[in-house]
Amino acid sequence: MTNSNTNKEIPYKIYLEENEMPKQWYNVRADMKNKPAPLLNPGTGQPLKAEELTPIFCEELVAQELDDDTAYFDIPDEILSFYKMYRPSPLVRAYCLEEKLQTSAKIYYKFEGNNTSGSHKLNSAIAQAYYAKKQGLKGVTTETGAGQWGTALSMACAYLGLDCKVFMVKVSYEQKPFRREVMRTYGASVTPSPSDTTAIGRKILEEFPGTSGSLGCAISEAVEVATQNEGYRYVLGSVLNQVLLHQSIIGLEAKAAADKYGVKFDTIIGCAGGGSNLGGLISPFMGQKLRGEADYEIIAVEPVSCPSFTRGKFAYDFCDTGMICPLAKMYTLGSSYIPPSDHAGGLRFHGMSSILSQLYHDGFMTARAVKQTEVFAAAEEFARCEGILPAPESSHAIKVAMDEAIKCRETGEEKTILFGLTGTGYFDLKGYEQFNNGELRDYVPTDEELEKGFATLPKV
Amino acid sequence: MTNSNTNKEIPYKIYLEENEMPKQWYNVRADMKNKPAPLLNPGTGQPLKAEELTPIFCEELVAQELDDDTAYFDIPDEILSFYKMYRPSPLVRAYCLEEKLQTSAKIYYKFEGNNTSGSHKLNSAIAQAYYAKKQGLKGVTTETGAGQWGTALSMACAYLGLDCKVFMVKVSYEQKPFRREVMRTYGASVTPSPSDTTAIGRKILEEFPGTSGSLGCAISEAVEVATQNEGYRYVLGSVLNQVLLHQSIIGLEAKAAADKYGVKFDTIIGCAGGGSNLGGLISPFMGQKLRGEADYEIIAVEPVSCPSFTRGKFAYDFCDTGMICPLAKMYTLGSSYIPPSDHAGGLRFHGMSSILSQLYHDGFMTARAVKQTEVFAAAEEFARCEGILPAPESSHAIKVAMDEAIKCRETGEEKTILFGLTGTGYFDLKGYEQFNNGELRDYVPTDEELEKGFATLPKV
Repeated sequence: MTNSNTNKEIPYKIYLEENEMPKQWYNVRADMKNKPAPLLNPGTGQPLKAEELTPIFCEELVAQELDDDTAYFDIPDEILSFYKMYRPSPLVRAYCLEEKLQTSAKIYYKFEGNNTSGSHKLNSAIAQAYYAKKQGLKGVTTETGAGQWGTALSMACAYLGLDCKVFMVKVSYEQKPFRREVMRTYGASVTPSPSDTTAIGRKILEEFPGTSGSLGCAISEAVEVATQNEGYRYVLGSVLNQVLLHQSIIGLEAKAAADKYGVKFDTIIGCAGGGSNLGGLISPFMGQKLRGEADYEIIAVEPVSCPSFTRGKFAYDFCDTGMICPLAKMYTLGSSYIPPSDHAGGLRFHGMSSILSQLYHDGFMTARAVKQTEVFAAAEEFARCEGILPAPESSHAIKVAMDEAIKCRETGEEKTILFGLTGTGYFDLKGYEQFNNGELRDYVPTDEELEKGFATLPKV
Repeated sequence: MTNSNTNKEIPYKIYLEENEMPKQWYNVRADMKNKPAPLLNPGTGQPLKAEELTPIFCEELVAQELDDDTAYFDIPDEILSFYKMYRPSPLVRAYCLEEKLQTSAKIYYKFEGNNTSGSHKLNSAIAQAYYAKKQGLKGVTTETGAGQWGTALSMACAYLGLDCKVFMVKVSYEQKPFRREVMRTYGASVTPSPSDTTAIGRKILEEFPGTSGSLGCAISEAVEVATQNEGYRYVLGSVLNQVLLHQSIIGLEAKAAADKYGVKFDTIIGCAGGGSNLGGLISPFMGQKLRGEADYEIIAVEPVSCPSFTRGKFAYDFCDTGMICPLAKMYTLGSSYIPPSDHAGGLRFHGMSSILSQLYHDGFMTARAVKQTEVFAAAEEFARCEGILPAPESSHAIKVAMDEAIKCRETGEEKTILFGLTGTGYFDLKGYEQFNNGELRDYVPTDEELEKGFATLPKV
């Protein structure tokens, strides 16, 4: 592979000027020949119409969700103003990591952790809160895993003066007690899930007493509360098409920064839970690939404990454990699959974005599953030379980026790698503590365990 | 007061380009007519010579410490490279806070929290670690309060491959358990202070059983370990002249960014514990003031629980509780004063930088003491509109900046305010939790309590 970078000196961090920031989101669906399959009504098995979705989601977000054709959406001024408080995010050249690995590869990362939510989640949180406010709603409900999405939504709601009710997966609620306080400081209410405050929560607790929860459970509870309270809607931090649309700001900024310095990526790597970061990061590059304008090797990285891409089935499934949400066609482990209580945090979701699932199915990207022990080892190595303490989720991408760079060291290949550093690990110190104490274990589900999840896939 | 800002549109965040970053530190002592008083040998009462300091401190740092005349010091290339990993830090225009306060003031803050240590401390940590490495040492010892300095030093030592031994004030060790894990992830050893691992620690524990510790105690322990282990030296994150020199990068960048956009500050506000942030922030502006080139209102903000400037004495005193360190002339509450276990964190130090003490004594700046309940209220208000969750230390400056902006709203004055936002509060959630639960109390020492501290001032 030839390296097409120019000789222009690349700074450690490329910051776009505020006037260079993207003013539109990019919808990769517009360039997909095989569109992602539509959401289905679980009762009728028919594609959902907008009017069936608006009791759950905000109206403009429903329109974005269902639009497979419009390539660009203007970002409203109010959202652009909010973005300017923490964006543009830097595109960082990992000079120190390159030197430590003695690699011939050039490594870049797009760092989304420089905001109080600690991750990229704020990009969609402010958009969803903005449309809720615009619709005149009182508030929104949501679920959160590691707490990044919940924090992001709390921040957005505080800024706009909306009420915010967060259901937090119980294992994370217990592992990350201070996350709750950040959300409370921003005025949100936070309930560990499953809880006895909802009918679906009580049902799950009865069926699985002592469960540590899952994103799927928490979604069910949040949807129940949104649909049963006047003036509330449910918002979701990943998986949905609208979220990938908002998150395209990551890839658009990365591409603009790279173009400014004549940098051309060969390989793009992102961690994948529901797909919000990966989808956002790769969107404009995937667009080029789909239009035949450029080629990129695109790698999704997921935890071995929750391997939707690498061991899941491409099928219609519920997005939630309670089976009250619409059906999405995606790579899934079955909505009843509850991953072990490891530190994969926000990657512990049984399914995957329909957009990414279709692209993966059509061969436009590959996927790898990695173990948490090797993920934390990569995180520590990265932190010690690049300074930033990464989130465990992001460290999945670091691990594979380092693997690729080490391969280059061995082959002499001069590849240019971009990975998404989605966030910081400041609230994930329980995981680091266990790693520091040598107490972390890996958990690889058996085929039998996965079969149990697949057995609950709906017949469509 | 006239506002001299130009009409050029000011972005939310001004980032200098890497090639615009300062390449020299500025030594404000060079422009002081009344130099800060020299450090004294507590045994002889005579000014300390370099050779008396080198058993404790690194050689080049001693030279910087004692140099009252050189105005500019070149920043070594290796340190500039490290700075580029997290600097330049943004100068932020607080548009949202201005709108929320409906003030005629313009508010700017220099945000130093966008790095894993969460504060400005990294600016001096990398410098001190660099000179230790250059001298061929094995490692360094230090104390830390809230943990920001200890984390910063751990990061710098990990980067350079130096051993790092941290004594952490016990109250913070207990309030901020995850700080310990960050430092351990960067390879440091962390001991709660006072500990039974040192002679001075055992003596303090005997005299004050159950004490929650103080920076003064932790300094004594770290110095003891440095002087009794071959190849180790002690490094300090605040108070010293060398630290203010390194931290001048904050003010120099702020000034360069402001100059670039034609912004002229009227009032400059910083929190003050030992003085590292305040000294660094104000250095180049104070230089202009001392040279008669410009005038600024400069305000130090300290906690009512540890009011060195506002209620202390300007006298020679020990920097440490164990009374083994040199004597510095400074505003002090007495080295035996142990402030209450509130959340002022890194501001809980009995003394103050000699440079700042002299400048305060000579009328070049003023000081205010604020209560932690009002500090957390200001922090919450700031977080909800500006997004960033601030450190409690930094929030002291926020509180006074807001007070000043509210005064402008009442008078219509169009003042331009700069304050130092030294760090983030991600590891201070125990304090926020108590605030959220309405459990925070204020503690104002009585005159009698202060008299006890003054009684231990050495006779010089």
